[in-house]
Amino acid sequence: MIYLKNDYSEGCHPEVLAALTRTNLEATTGYGEDEYCKAAAEKIKACFQCPDADVHFLVGGTQVNFTALDAFLRPWEAAIATSLGHIAVHETGAVEGTGHKVLTAPCTDGILTPQMVREIVAAHPNEHMVKPRIVYISDSTEVGTIYHKAELAALHDCCEELGLLLYLDGARLASALTSPENDIAPEDLPRYCDAFYVGGTKNGALFGEALVIVNDALKPDFRYAIKQHGGMLAKGRLLGVQFGALFENDLWFSIARHANALADKLQSGIEKAGYSLLVHSPSNQIFPIFPDEMVRKLEKDFAFEIQAHPAPGQTCIRLVTSWATEEAAVDAFLKAIQ
Amino acid sequence: MIYLKNDYSEGCHPEVLAALTRTNLEATTGYGEDEYCKAAAEKIKACFQCPDADVHFLVGGTQVNFTALDAFLRPWEAAIATSLGHIAVHETGAVEGTGHKVLTAPCTDGILTPQMVREIVAAHPNEHMVKPRIVYISDSTEVGTIYHKAELAALHDCCEELGLLLYLDGARLASALTSPENDIAPEDLPRYCDAFYVGGTKNGALFGEALVIVNDALKPDFRYAIKQHGGMLAKGRLLGVQFGALFENDLWFSIARHANALADKLQSGIEKAGYSLLVHSPSNQIFPIFPDEMVRKLEKDFAFEIQAHPAPGQTCIRLVTSWATEEAAVDAFLKAIQ
Amino acid sequence: MIYLKNDYSEGCHPEVLAALTRTNLEATTGYGEDEYCKAAAEKIKACFQCPDADVHFLVGGTQVNFTALDAFLRPWEAAIATSLGHIAVHETGAVEGTGHKVLTAPCTDGILTPQMVREIVAAHPNEHMVKPRIVYISDSTEVGTIYHKAELAALHDCCEELGLLLYLDGARLASALTSPENDIAPEDLPRYCDAFYVGGTKNGALFGEALVIVNDALKPDFRYAIKQHGGMLAKGRLLGVQFGALFENDLWFSIARHANALADKLQSGIEKAGYSLLVHSPSNQIFPIFPDEMVRKLEKDFAFEIQAHPAPGQTCIRLVTSWATEEAAVDAFLKAIQ
Amino acid sequence: MIYLKNDYSEGCHPEVLAALTRTNLEATTGYGEDEYCKAAAEKIKACFQCPDADVHFLVGGTQVNFTALDAFLRPWEAAIATSLGHIAVHETGAVEGTGHKVLTAPCTDGILTPQMVREIVAAHPNEHMVKPRIVYISDSTEVGTIYHKAELAALHDCCEELGLLLYLDGARLASALTSPENDIAPEDLPRYCDAFYVGGTKNGALFGEALVIVNDALKPDFRYAIKQHGGMLAKGRLLGVQFGALFENDLWFSIARHANALADKLQSGIEKAGYSLLVHSPSNQIFPIFPDEMVRKLEKDFAFEIQAHPAPGQTCIRLVTSWATEEAAVDAFLKAIQ
Repeated sequence: MIYLKNDYSEGCHPEVLAALTRTNLEATTGYGEDEYCKAAAEKIKACFQCPDADVHFLVGGTQVNFTALDAFLRPWEAAIATSLGHIAVHETGAVEGTGHKVLTAPCTDGILTPQMVREIVAAHPNEHMVKPRIVYISDSTEVGTIYHKAELAALHDCCEELGLLLYLDGARLASALTSPENDIAPEDLPRYCDAFYVGGTKNGALFGEALVIVNDALKPDFRYAIKQHGGMLAKGRLLGVQFGALFENDLWFSIARHANALADKLQSGIEKAGYSLLVHSPSNQIFPIFPDEMVRKLEKDFAFEIQAHPAPGQTCIRLVTSWATEEAAVDAFLKAIQ
Repeated sequence: MIYLKNDYSEGCHPEVLAALTRTNLEATTGYGEDEYCKAAAEKIKACFQCPDADVHFLVGGTQVNFTALDAFLRPWEAAIATSLGHIAVHETGAVEGTGHKVLTAPCTDGILTPQMVREIVAAHPNEHMVKPRIVYISDSTEVGTIYHKAELAALHDCCEELGLLLYLDGARLASALTSPENDIAPEDLPRYCDAFYVGGTKNGALFGEALVIVNDALKPDFRYAIKQHGGMLAKGRLLGVQFGALFENDLWFSIARHANALADKLQSGIEKAGYSLLVHSPSNQIFPIFPDEMVRKLEKDFAFEIQAHPAPGQTCIRLVTSWATEEAAVDAFLKAIQ
Repeated sequence: MIYLKNDYSEGCHPEVLAALTRTNLEATTGYGEDEYCKAAAEKIKACFQCPDADVHFLVGGTQVNFTALDAFLRPWEAAIATSLGHIAVHETGAVEGTGHKVLTAPCTDGILTPQMVREIVAAHPNEHMVKPRIVYISDSTEVGTIYHKAELAALHDCCEELGLLLYLDGARLASALTSPENDIAPEDLPRYCDAFYVGGTKNGALFGEALVIVNDALKPDFRYAIKQHGGMLAKGRLLGVQFGALFENDLWFSIARHANALADKLQSGIEKAGYSLLVHSPSNQIFPIFPDEMVRKLEKDFAFEIQAHPAPGQTCIRLVTSWATEEAAVDAFLKAIQ
Repeated sequence: MIYLKNDYSEGCHPEVLAALTRTNLEATTGYGEDEYCKAAAEKIKACFQCPDADVHFLVGGTQVNFTALDAFLRPWEAAIATSLGHIAVHETGAVEGTGHKVLTAPCTDGILTPQMVREIVAAHPNEHMVKPRIVYISDSTEVGTIYHKAELAALHDCCEELGLLLYLDGARLASALTSPENDIAPEDLPRYCDAFYVGGTKNGALFGEALVIVNDALKPDFRYAIKQHGGMLAKGRLLGVQFGALFENDLWFSIARHANALADKLQSGIEKAGYSLLVHSPSNQIFPIFPDEMVRKLEKDFAFEIQAHPAPGQTCIRLVTSWATEEAAVDAFLKAIQ
């Protein structure tokens, strides 16, 4: 079986494993207050050029999202997301589980626009409704698209004008930032976002996400939020060690470039073979549409997710590449659809 | 610096690391639905002789506790614990964070008795108060003591009589079950408890706890609870691989025996040297009392936690041993207090 | 100023006030455990022909909805409603505040159909998403439309098939049941719904809603839910006295008929005058569309809500009649739009 | 049956009922935004000399407490109360239901001291535990005792020093302020408290409590909290009308004086008859101790609550007087115990 199912099918990148192995028998203080976590946080702040930010390491994406939103919001405040937003669909209501409604704008390409934000805010004028307070976006999005700098800047300006916070889910941020179509620099993220997270799980770590809190007002007492929501790892240094390795020698970026290149080869090859896409993706998730019968055949040799059924007889599947994907897998897939 | 601070200062046992390394590049399905998790669950069910139980793997202890209690309780139902209970003191109100009160019985030795349970239940007779519903115990307890079989059986009978559930926090269950003073067999746990968890983080894993749900009524839909509370690891097989290694060749038990033996040597040596204990502990955490001045000196070479100040001029410290503790560390400590 | 703004602008119906006055100096036990509450519950069970139901009195509609849904649902379970649903829009996220997502089906006439329910259930197949569990409908709906018996029966069958609960918000149930277009009998409600509430606030009471729990599985411990959510009135007998008066001599029905008749006169007159409606309403809320300028003029003499702006230059307003509305108010409005 | 059971056995004071009757058919805007609520808020601000405070009217005490604490606290922040505190014992875990732990100091007289506060704060030094943030006190307390000005000032100073908020539950504030032993002036409350509530339910209203928010930081968006927690009454003016009547002509104070005078007569008479008290009470709740057998006899003619069993064969009962209590009831009770 060839896995093109997602970017978390394997363990971790060999460099990350080497770092974990090298430090395995060292004794450190727990709960992320060790030197490895401090060093990794410094590297991330240097990379994103935000020396005054707070960096916290958590285990997974859902955990970061609901912990951050719960800490940032008052009880009646709500998040705004697209209808594809991970927090809106694929986190088992974790944000609602902490008491906050997720307001969604219908959307097919995953990109939230200021216009969508304005309409939702306008529709919630008083205390009989929730109060929209934080804007949630993902880059890359849930369908592989990416934000452009002008779009991110416009969202930031809109949020500032309307008194909203801007939060960016960076589960696949490495893939977005290394996309050939990307024009956002790492240092743009803290300029435009109040908080964002730097994904590790889907880009080479065993697990782990680094939350970067830029807005001073959101910083106090955040470690209480992590602990209360079960996100404080006893052996917290595991996160520091992994992010330390990822942000050494450009690793976090270079392995994402690898994934993007293979995804691009897949997408181009599929288009060349005459198949259409749910949406054009410049990152490591692509969404080709095939006849149902071909999908059934492909399932015998390849592992992937079914995304949608855009028309009778047609199935859109999701193919994902990662640091671990080999070119041979891509070639095999392209051959299989000839 | 010699670490006697806790049982999660290092990474994982070499056998566990070897298993992670061996499987690192394999691709599996995510979220704990892989073959490694299935195999590890089977091993645990075999060890504890509960073939019909459900086993779920989560990352950490606080996470297991609040996820399980939230899933098992209706909104107004409460937990009963000792005043030392980990959920009552050291989880940043995670259980309350999901809406449930933790009722506590004053206690110095960590052991909850049926009498304490009865008094709390009697004091909560109607709907103006929370409804006690689940009894939470830890074995070994927060102060290193352990339950005896008769105590566990008596709690079980009391719970059955009063319509309560019995939940056992096994963060340090390996240390309890391998204590020379222990008379509880693994198979007693599913006989007496509705659910319990088998600790990995504090006994050789990088991270991970295995929740065993025995009571059929508590089983349905538990994976929703895990996901909603941020406890579903994308690369879930990491937990299966680790528990698979721990429950191979008696590893989980043998490394706990090692920790217990060193703790016993420490405790005996300290007593022989003329110092007293907060409480006698037959497991891997011990609580000697020293003059303040000696504690200040010890802090220069040894890492440990301060537990309490039982009298003016006296400090109780906590010393913890683990699979990673070397006999030399114990010897050095005993020499230092001569 | 003539009020056509809502059905809770005045105090209570004179008969209700007389009952409160008559009993004012009697001493009774508190918290709804008095004889007045028991008698009122019996009257309601007799009226709706559900002798085995549990009846609980709460103060207001939002309070009933989130208390009931929180008691009926496990933490990851969600409600299904139309996009106009009161719980989805106008309760400040109270249901999410207790941890539960509200899934909505786009809708303009307020009527939820089995097809909408099926689509939402189909889109939530596993534990990465919330689990749809309870279907929320309102009768009359938020835009004045009402369910017909066949529609309610079809929803019930669909819920039964899919393992869902059916909950009916009866804030304006009296208006629905007395509508000339209604074919649902009081005794149909417990046949088709697992729980429903009988509205008092919007039909003659100072305040108060009577929740009727039909499904045995939902009954235990509900008073804990009421108390925990702040809904247990110390002088609970006030609710029993009011519902006792409303369910005496057909009062609850007859005053709703009065409101419906005046709403019908308003709606017919408006149509006759050449204006269109957002939706045809057979109950006590109607939604005419007028030119913006006329609305600005009407606002000088009449109090009403703005509902929407269906087209440039057009405003849809909401007019509501009640037991307290006088025919002269309707006549004045109709004259004003000539 | 003579009711000495509580201060909410009857309806409302005749003056309050007269005001409700007089205004019953007036139409006003809903949800507490009417002129009656505004006028009542002004009267309360004048009485307590806090012209800049925000005043919100809610239906009951549990509702005010958990709504306020949830709005004032971040998710991991906790309340401090005595072990008798109403929020700690008698609100079905409503505060925990919103996610916040209630930390309690053992106490028999209901009075919280700075020393108790300091000990709890000292025991919660880091993010592994909840963060104490708000101090909850009741005046009069749950056992009828009252705070003296020096005690309240000392608590205020302690809170200011430790960065805590001070919240006063005034369910029986009228009884406290009119007690012969009281030296706290109404204007002292906003000087010393960040927020407090003025009880109506237990002093002459059908229902209703007036929350006074003094601290500017706690004011924004509080109406969202009320609505989300089901506390926003549709016919909100009912609260304004009632508090308007209570704060007219000294009514709120004078009826509390009546209750206090009768409680004092009861307490003195009981002591003179040779019985002891659980605690000396200068307010409208008293706690005499009688032989079990006498209690059983008294129950035939008098309604009261059982408070405790302080010794074998002894029962402590609670007797409560109110605006509605007649002197004949007190005389009858005193005669019965001769």
